[in-house]
Amino acid sequence: MSNCLIAQSGGPTSVINASLSGVISSSIESSAINTVYGSINGIQGVLNNNLINLSSIFKDSKEKLERLKLTPSMFLGSCRYKLPNIEDDNEQYKLIFDIFKQNDIKYFFYIGGNDSMDTVLKLSQYAKAYKQDVKIIGIPKTIDNDLYGTDHTPGFGSAAKFVATTLLEISYDTYIYDIPSVTIVEIMGRNAGWLTASSALARNKNNSSPDLIYLPEVPFSIAEFIENLKQLQKKKRNIVVAVSEGIKDKNGNYICACQNSTNDKFGHAKLSGTGKTLEDIVCNELNCKVRSIELNVLQRSAMHIASLTDVTESTLVGKKAVEYALEGYTGKMVSIIRKNNNSYEYEITHVDIEKVANKEKRIPGEWISKDKNDITAPLLEYIKPLIYGEPNIEYKEGLPNYININHLFS
Amino acid sequence: MSNCLIAQSGGPTSVINASLSGVISSSIESSAINTVYGSINGIQGVLNNNLINLSSIFKDSKEKLERLKLTPSMFLGSCRYKLPNIEDDNEQYKLIFDIFKQNDIKYFFYIGGNDSMDTVLKLSQYAKAYKQDVKIIGIPKTIDNDLYGTDHTPGFGSAAKFVATTLLEISYDTYIYDIPSVTIVEIMGRNAGWLTASSALARNKNNSSPDLIYLPEVPFSIAEFIENLKQLQKKKRNIVVAVSEGIKDKNGNYICACQNSTNDKFGHAKLSGTGKTLEDIVCNELNCKVRSIELNVLQRSAMHIASLTDVTESTLVGKKAVEYALEGYTGKMVSIIRKNNNSYEYEITHVDIEKVANKEKRIPGEWISKDKNDITAPLLEYIKPLIYGEPNIEYKEGLPNYININHLFS
Repeated sequence: MSNCLIAQSGGPTSVINASLSGVISSSIESSAINTVYGSINGIQGVLNNNLINLSSIFKDSKEKLERLKLTPSMFLGSCRYKLPNIEDDNEQYKLIFDIFKQNDIKYFFYIGGNDSMDTVLKLSQYAKAYKQDVKIIGIPKTIDNDLYGTDHTPGFGSAAKFVATTLLEISYDTYIYDIPSVTIVEIMGRNAGWLTASSALARNKNNSSPDLIYLPEVPFSIAEFIENLKQLQKKKRNIVVAVSEGIKDKNGNYICACQNSTNDKFGHAKLSGTGKTLEDIVCNELNCKVRSIELNVLQRSAMHIASLTDVTESTLVGKKAVEYALEGYTGKMVSIIRKNNNSYEYEITHVDIEKVANKEKRIPGEWISKDKNDITAPLLEYIKPLIYGEPNIEYKEGLPNYININHLFS
Repeated sequence: MSNCLIAQSGGPTSVINASLSGVISSSIESSAINTVYGSINGIQGVLNNNLINLSSIFKDSKEKLERLKLTPSMFLGSCRYKLPNIEDDNEQYKLIFDIFKQNDIKYFFYIGGNDSMDTVLKLSQYAKAYKQDVKIIGIPKTIDNDLYGTDHTPGFGSAAKFVATTLLEISYDTYIYDIPSVTIVEIMGRNAGWLTASSALARNKNNSSPDLIYLPEVPFSIAEFIENLKQLQKKKRNIVVAVSEGIKDKNGNYICACQNSTNDKFGHAKLSGTGKTLEDIVCNELNCKVRSIELNVLQRSAMHIASLTDVTESTLVGKKAVEYALEGYTGKMVSIIRKNNNSYEYEITHVDIEKVANKEKRIPGEWISKDKNDITAPLLEYIKPLIYGEPNIEYKEGLPNYININHLFS
């Protein structure tokens, strides 16, 4: 019997701990795995030998595991750490695999997005090149839904449900005054507009907003935006606009106010203020009430409005990761295949990590409307089933009863 | 048999329609009331004779009334319209009471905050002076909880629950990275800090944030704020600050960036950007990750995380308003009395409108901590029971199934 190690990386989602709970429960149940370890703050925790014993925390408590499943944020903490290329510097890899050896780790699970899959790729390449018997499996998560190799990503459905619910409630809020208004809602998604697109789910027979949807896949023109608003104002009093934080002009420059801000460690520009920038522009161009709303980190942390479909799938990809590792697979990411859209059916499989790491899946052109300010019906049908169902959150004194994560800073 | 008329005014709350549902159901049930009318966009709808027949919409549909109860925003729309003083100009009053006469309105219910209670006061004064037999009753609502004459206001509990839940989820979100951070959450409440104070409910045995709470009742010092943060950073890695949008310096100037923006019709400054202003200041003063989050209109529209206690009480104050009007009371606001805090018990009564209109109830000094950056335990105990319970929202295809309010703009 050997041990396994789990870590989480990148930005949180409401359900990344559901995947963790899946890995833990299947590992604990497995006769092939002795102790389940967790690394604190992703791969950095391995480099620092900062591991915790998850078996001892969860072994005898199904109730604790259930609470973990329904707690947002990341029980094991996160990092945004990029491993060097193996050929440039293999010292860190030696250290990581030494730690694995010291702790008899034969299975390593990394829950994350496309940057984290780069870590999975490099570790599995190193293991192969240096004949290390450690199975390396990636478990997808991101609210951005921008991973290749999977129909959609765990975490996206819950974020989409939060965005759609919030857009519905904001739209209702705008209708109450009899004066013209423009409300601009800024939604996360650096280069891929999946989450911004999910705002369209707020439309139903009682609600036609959002009225305009601007995706980062399409160059943004301020002149066309103002023209779109002017045309709409002839027909509608209260206009709601959904806009991605990452929209750029035709030269590739971000529209947001903080274009000159610093990049993060992966070279991504830190974005915010797109909604506020547009608010100021509309204020100057149109004579009406204007408000911008940035949904901010609530998109990735509002477990109280998570999608049950997403919670279930996230748990299952965690469980399947253990199954695949025990079957001997390595250098794989667990993935979801959609079998049938009409009566949403899916199955879980795995995909070579090379096909996933360091790539970004963006919305294809045919799913964007001709006038570039909306999405098409097939994209709506694609997202729709992912927000179905409400998990049974336990409330205590009026608030969700989330699991203790104080070990992250003690 | 006469008719009654209902209108809504001021900013929305998640549960203002619950009060409306209470008025409608009791009016429909009453043998003394014939038809229940609603005025579109508050008192302006009366002046424009823009009334709708609520009896015909809701008479035979308990299911529709239940859906109304659990729909945020305002079914009857809103206005921010201040009636002139009667002695300056009584033409509008003549018109209003003419419309009442034309429609055989003997009972008028106005659901709103302290500005709306000014309308209730003036209409009841006019009715008395000019011997008009119309009973005028105010029904309280505001997320700000700043009304005199009632223990707390309908709408506050749900907003407090949203704020506390969100603060909890944001706090968990901040804990995942092992680098120092300051997260500033901007909360509504122009002059009264009740809603900002409710962020303290997010603290429990697993969570100590928010770490600092800045109320508009206390002059805000940027130097002290930075000093508070520096001291805290010695003990804690990820700091969360709850701040009211309305904090002012010792000279009474708003801290927010938009000090020079326009006032609304009641002379209130339009506030936003306090969090962003503080974010920029902290960025310059401390070497750490800084983020500001503005909770914005979600505080008043997020019915999906409303308080069941609040929904129940809001419905009940609506029902009681009808009871009091039929008993012959006029110039009153329905109010809530707390009988027992230990095992939260309340009863509904009424209060003279003169004691309520145009006043703002702020947090008393003894409920603010000595160092002015937190609240005291009795305030926490006061707010706590108001967020208890979760209403049973109906979901359809993954989203709350709210009532149609398209009549507001058709």
